[in-house]
Amino acid sequence: MNAEQAVAQAAAAYSNWGRWGEDDVLGTVNFIDEAARRRAAGLVRRGAAFSLAQRFDADGPQKGWKRRTNPVHTMTSTGLDAVYGEPAFPHGIGGADDVISMPLQCSTQWDGLGHIFDHGRAWNGRPADKVVTSEGDLVTGIEHLAAPVAGRGVLLDVAAVYGELPDGFAITEEHLTATARAHGVEVGRGDLVCVRTGQLARAKRDGWGDYAGGPAPGLSFWTAGWLHRTEIAAVATDTWGFEVRPNEFENAFQPLHQVVIPHLGLLVGEMWDFDALAADCAADGVYEFLLTAAPLPITGAVGSPVNPLALK
Amino acid sequence: MNAEQAVAQAAAAYSNWGRWGEDDVLGTVNFIDEAARRRAAGLVRRGAAFSLAQRFDADGPQKGWKRRTNPVHTMTSTGLDAVYGEPAFPHGIGGADDVISMPLQCSTQWDGLGHIFDHGRAWNGRPADKVVTSEGDLVTGIEHLAAPVAGRGVLLDVAAVYGELPDGFAITEEHLTATARAHGVEVGRGDLVCVRTGQLARAKRDGWGDYAGGPAPGLSFWTAGWLHRTEIAAVATDTWGFEVRPNEFENAFQPLHQVVIPHLGLLVGEMWDFDALAADCAADGVYEFLLTAAPLPITGAVGSPVNPLALK
Amino acid sequence: MNAEQAVAQAAAAYSNWGRWGEDDVLGTVNFIDEAARRRAAGLVRRGAAFSLAQRFDADGPQKGWKRRTNPVHTMTSTGLDAVYGEPAFPHGIGGADDVISMPLQCSTQWDGLGHIFDHGRAWNGRPADKVVTSEGDLVTGIEHLAAPVAGRGVLLDVAAVYGELPDGFAITEEHLTATARAHGVEVGRGDLVCVRTGQLARAKRDGWGDYAGGPAPGLSFWTAGWLHRTEIAAVATDTWGFEVRPNEFENAFQPLHQVVIPHLGLLVGEMWDFDALAADCAADGVYEFLLTAAPLPITGAVGSPVNPLALK
Amino acid sequence: MNAEQAVAQAAAAYSNWGRWGEDDVLGTVNFIDEAARRRAAGLVRRGAAFSLAQRFDADGPQKGWKRRTNPVHTMTSTGLDAVYGEPAFPHGIGGADDVISMPLQCSTQWDGLGHIFDHGRAWNGRPADKVVTSEGDLVTGIEHLAAPVAGRGVLLDVAAVYGELPDGFAITEEHLTATARAHGVEVGRGDLVCVRTGQLARAKRDGWGDYAGGPAPGLSFWTAGWLHRTEIAAVATDTWGFEVRPNEFENAFQPLHQVVIPHLGLLVGEMWDFDALAADCAADGVYEFLLTAAPLPITGAVGSPVNPLALK
Repeated sequence: MNAEQAVAQAAAAYSNWGRWGEDDVLGTVNFIDEAARRRAAGLVRRGAAFSLAQRFDADGPQKGWKRRTNPVHTMTSTGLDAVYGEPAFPHGIGGADDVISMPLQCSTQWDGLGHIFDHGRAWNGRPADKVVTSEGDLVTGIEHLAAPVAGRGVLLDVAAVYGELPDGFAITEEHLTATARAHGVEVGRGDLVCVRTGQLARAKRDGWGDYAGGPAPGLSFWTAGWLHRTEIAAVATDTWGFEVRPNEFENAFQPLHQVVIPHLGLLVGEMWDFDALAADCAADGVYEFLLTAAPLPITGAVGSPVNPLALK
Repeated sequence: MNAEQAVAQAAAAYSNWGRWGEDDVLGTVNFIDEAARRRAAGLVRRGAAFSLAQRFDADGPQKGWKRRTNPVHTMTSTGLDAVYGEPAFPHGIGGADDVISMPLQCSTQWDGLGHIFDHGRAWNGRPADKVVTSEGDLVTGIEHLAAPVAGRGVLLDVAAVYGELPDGFAITEEHLTATARAHGVEVGRGDLVCVRTGQLARAKRDGWGDYAGGPAPGLSFWTAGWLHRTEIAAVATDTWGFEVRPNEFENAFQPLHQVVIPHLGLLVGEMWDFDALAADCAADGVYEFLLTAAPLPITGAVGSPVNPLALK
Repeated sequence: MNAEQAVAQAAAAYSNWGRWGEDDVLGTVNFIDEAARRRAAGLVRRGAAFSLAQRFDADGPQKGWKRRTNPVHTMTSTGLDAVYGEPAFPHGIGGADDVISMPLQCSTQWDGLGHIFDHGRAWNGRPADKVVTSEGDLVTGIEHLAAPVAGRGVLLDVAAVYGELPDGFAITEEHLTATARAHGVEVGRGDLVCVRTGQLARAKRDGWGDYAGGPAPGLSFWTAGWLHRTEIAAVATDTWGFEVRPNEFENAFQPLHQVVIPHLGLLVGEMWDFDALAADCAADGVYEFLLTAAPLPITGAVGSPVNPLALK
Repeated sequence: MNAEQAVAQAAAAYSNWGRWGEDDVLGTVNFIDEAARRRAAGLVRRGAAFSLAQRFDADGPQKGWKRRTNPVHTMTSTGLDAVYGEPAFPHGIGGADDVISMPLQCSTQWDGLGHIFDHGRAWNGRPADKVVTSEGDLVTGIEHLAAPVAGRGVLLDVAAVYGELPDGFAITEEHLTATARAHGVEVGRGDLVCVRTGQLARAKRDGWGDYAGGPAPGLSFWTAGWLHRTEIAAVATDTWGFEVRPNEFENAFQPLHQVVIPHLGLLVGEMWDFDALAADCAADGVYEFLLTAAPLPITGAVGSPVNPLALK
C-alpha cells in the first residue's frame, strides 16, 4: 500500500466530517465540553505552573524552508534612547517598544484547521480554495479557537519509558498505550495529549541540526485510528512535525497530517517544550493537569504561536 | 503639584524595589504563589471559557504612532495554490502557511517590566540603559513571565456599575472598591484585576476613532496607592493605555505608568476585551475566575500579545 | 458605454499581445533599445542629478487599504549601543544595522506586469492564475526588469501648464500633447513619460489626506490610445494611482490599469516626486533627460520600490 | 602592530573630517560633481544596460547573523484569487499585491555613513550616539544620498587578471593598480570603483556556503591609503564584506570598514553582482561606464538595498 492508498483508507475509516454539523469550525476541540474543563481544573492540586513553549527568538531552528525564518524581534525605542537620547516625553518618563516579524509556525504553535488539505478538501469536506485564500482562512481561521482550548492535559513521556528515541522512530499505538499505563493515566475524550519524544532535549544538548524539517521521532501513520478512537481534542509533540520522519512510505510527505487535520479535524501542536513539565511529572508521578493553550486570535490565520500553560 | 512631583512622591511611597531581592525579574507576579493558583483553579465551577483578546488583524485601532501599525498577516501558500497550482507535495497533500508582522503592543497585550522607565530607572532600580538595548530587554524580558501568569482573575465592571464612562473619566479608588462591593468580591494579593471601562464596547459600536492613544476613561493617577496596597499581581483594562486620558496633570504623559511599572513592578495589560465575560458575570453574579494569561516568550521583548483565558 | 464595455473595446483596439513573442516578460520596455539609451545619455548636458522618489518612512500616505501600511523601519543596533552598550566587536569598531517591513507599493514604485489582470488574463494573454501564485509572479516577476529600465525621460508638467489640477481632473490626450508642445518636446517610442499633476505638492503643503486611494487628478481613461500609439515604454505620475479618480464610469475601479497593464504591457509608475525636477525644467526649459529607474530585483514581485534618477 | 594601532594610524593619515564642512552628510560622494557625471554619461557608447544586483529572495546567503535573514516576500493577493476567488472589484479587473520584510543589508546594498563607527565616532567626527538612535540615523541617513550617486563606474576585475581568488586573498594596492593597467583604465576622483573578486561566481557554482560573513577574498587593510589618495567616491565588491576575511590582524573584525566609513566618509557597496558586466567588459575591452546606483531613500536608514545600473 502506498501513501495515497493509506491516506484514502484512513480518511474513509476515521472521518469526522459532519459530526458537529455542516458549519463546524472547531473540529475535535468540540470534544472539550464544560464538564471536561471543570474536571481538568480539579487536577490543579499544588498550583504549580509550567510553560510548554520554546522561546521565540533568532536562535531558533528555522532555516528558510517555505520562507520560514526564525522570529525577527527589533526595538523601536530602548533604554539607551531613554537615558541618552532626546527626551520624547515630559517629566522623566521613558519607554521601550518593539516589533516582531515571524512565520506563524516558526516555533511552538498550533496548526489551524486550514493548515492541511487532502486532495483539495479542507476540514469538514469543504473545498480548500473556498476556505483559504490570500486573505487567509475565511472559514476556520484560528480566531475561532480563541476561547475553547483549555482542558485536561496528559503527558505521554515516551522518551522516559522507552529511552531516548532516535530519529525515524515511529511511535505506535502500543507505545502510546504502554506509556499511558506506565504513567497511570488513561487517555480519553477531550484530552489534550502531549507526546514527548525527547528530540527537543537532544537539540538543546547537541544543537538544532535539522530539527526543522529533518529526521525525527514521531507518531506513526498507523496511530490515526487511535487518535480518532480516543476522541482526544488535540495532540502535541516536542518535534517540528509531530509525525515520524522520514515518513513510513516511499515518496511521502506528512501523510498523518493529511488524515488528521482535514478528516478528523484534530488540533495538532508542534515544537512544544515538555522538558520542565516532564521532570515534574517524573518526580511526583502525576501525568495529568489543567492545560490552557489559547492561540492568538489572528484573524484568518492557519496557525498560531502559543504559550501553553500546564497547571498541576 | 505637577506630574513630576506627583510621580516622585508616589514612587517614594509605593516602591517595591528590593522587595523580592536584587535579581528579581517578575515584579508583582511574585504575589501569585502556588496556593493562589490552586485557589483560583477552585473557582472553575462550570468549565466555561472566555477569551479576553481582541482579534489581531488589519482592522485594528493603530494609526502609526511610534511606528505602531496594525498586524500585517500574509499567506505564503493558500487553498487556491493547493487546488489550482502545481502540486508542491506528493499523494494529494496540500497546505497553507502564513506570516505576521506586528508591533508587540498593537493589540491585546501585557506590558513587560522593561516597557517604562522613570528618570532612566527600570524595575527594581536598574539603569534603563543596561536593561533594554537594541538587543531587547536583557534582564526583564517578557520570556521570564512565560510560566507564572495564572491566578485569580477579578472583573471590576466599572461601566456596569457607573454607566458608560466618557473619555477623560478618571476611575478612582472609590470607584474600584464600590464596584468590587457591588460585585460581591474583594480584591487581594496576587489577583489579576480586570477593569472594564466600556470604551472598547463603544469602539465596536462607533468605530475605532482615537482608541489608540486618544482620550479614554481609565485609572486615575491617584489609584497608585490602591494598586500597591492591595498587592495585586496585575491590572488590565479594555483601553489603549489603562490610565485616564487626558492625564490628570498639565503637559503629562502616562504618569501612572511611570509609577507602577518601574516602581511597583506591576504587570499591566491593555486593549483587553472583557465584553463576553462581563455579560456572563452580570448573568450569574460571579466576578471571580481562573485567569491564565501567559505571554508569548519572545526573548527580550518589552511586551507581548496575549490571549488571556478566563475559566469560570 | 459602461466601464466593462470601454475596457473591452480599448483592449481590442490597443492590445500588444504577441507583439514581442509568446515568451515576452518585458512589455513596452521592449521599446527601449540600445539606441534609445545611447541617445538618452546624450541628453546629460550639465550632469545634474534628481531623485524622483518620495522618502520611505512611517510618515507616508498609507492607511491600511489592502493591508498597505507605510514602511516600518527599525534598528537592530544603534550608535547608542555602540557607545554605551557592551562592545560586540574588538578594537573599538561599532556599527548600526537595520530592517524594513513594507508593502512593495507603499511609496514610489513601479507596477510589475503581474500587478493587474483583465478578466483573469495577465500580460500577453497568459492566465493570471498560472502567472501569480502565493509564490509570487512566476513568469513576469519584476526581476526581469532589473536591467533595461533606463532611457529618455520626458516630463509633462501638466500642472505647470494648466495650473493646479483639482482632484477628479481627467488629463486628456489634448492636455498631454499641449503640455508637450508648451515644453518643446515630442513624446515617442521608448520614452519614460513623467506626468506631473501637482497633487503631491498639494499633499506636501496640506497633508496627506486621502492621497492613498482617494480622489486625484490623473490620466483619463481615454488616453489609452495615446499611451499605445506613442509607443512609450512607461508612464509615471505623482499620484497614488496614475489614472483620474473617481474614475470616469459608474461603479468603476481603475479601468485604465485594466487596459494598459495586461493589454499594452505598459510599465506604470506611481507616487513619484517630480517637484525638484520640475523646478529645474521650468528654469532651463529642458524637459527631457536620461532617466534610470531600475526596480529592486525582488524575485516574483508584482511591484517594486524604486528611486528613479533623472540626469540632465 | 595590532588592529587597534593600525586603525588609529590609518585614521590619522587618511581622515576627511571637515573636508566638506561641519555639516557634511555625503562623504566621498562629494567627489562626484556635475562634470564627472556629464563625462560619465559620455561613456555610454552602445546603450547597453547591466544590472549589478543580486536577486532579492529567500534563496540568499543570510543565515541569521545579527538577525540578518534573507528577504521574506509574501503576496497579499494573487492571480489565483483573481480567477477563482470572490471578485474584489467590478468589471473584471483583478490584481495582485505584495509585501516584503528584510534587513537593509541582506543583499546588494550600500552601507550608509551611519553604518560603522570608530571608538564611538561616526563620519565627520560626530558622536555615534547622537547620530544613530532607535529612530534611525538622524544626521546621515541614506536618504541624503537619494540623488547624487551616479557617475563613472570602473570595473577592476581582479579575478580575471589574477585568476580565481581564494578566500583569505588580500587584494593589495598593487593588485588594484595592475588590474587597472591591464584593463587600460585609470582610477580617479569621483569614480565608483567595482572590484570583482569572483567569489560570487564561485557561490553561484558551489552554493552559498559561508558567503555571508565567512572567509572571502577582499581588499587588504593596507589599501586604505589608495582608497583615500585616489579620491574615489565609492567602492563596491561582489563579497559580503568588501575587505578580506579573515582580517589581516589577530582578533580583528572589519578594520578597513572602521577606517573608511567613519574617517574617509567612503561609500561602500557589498554583495554586488558584476558577472554579466565583467563578461561584456572582457569582450569589448572597455572597463568604464556610466553607473547609477541611487539607494532607496529610507529615512534614517544606515544602509539600503540597491539595483546599480551600468550603462555602456
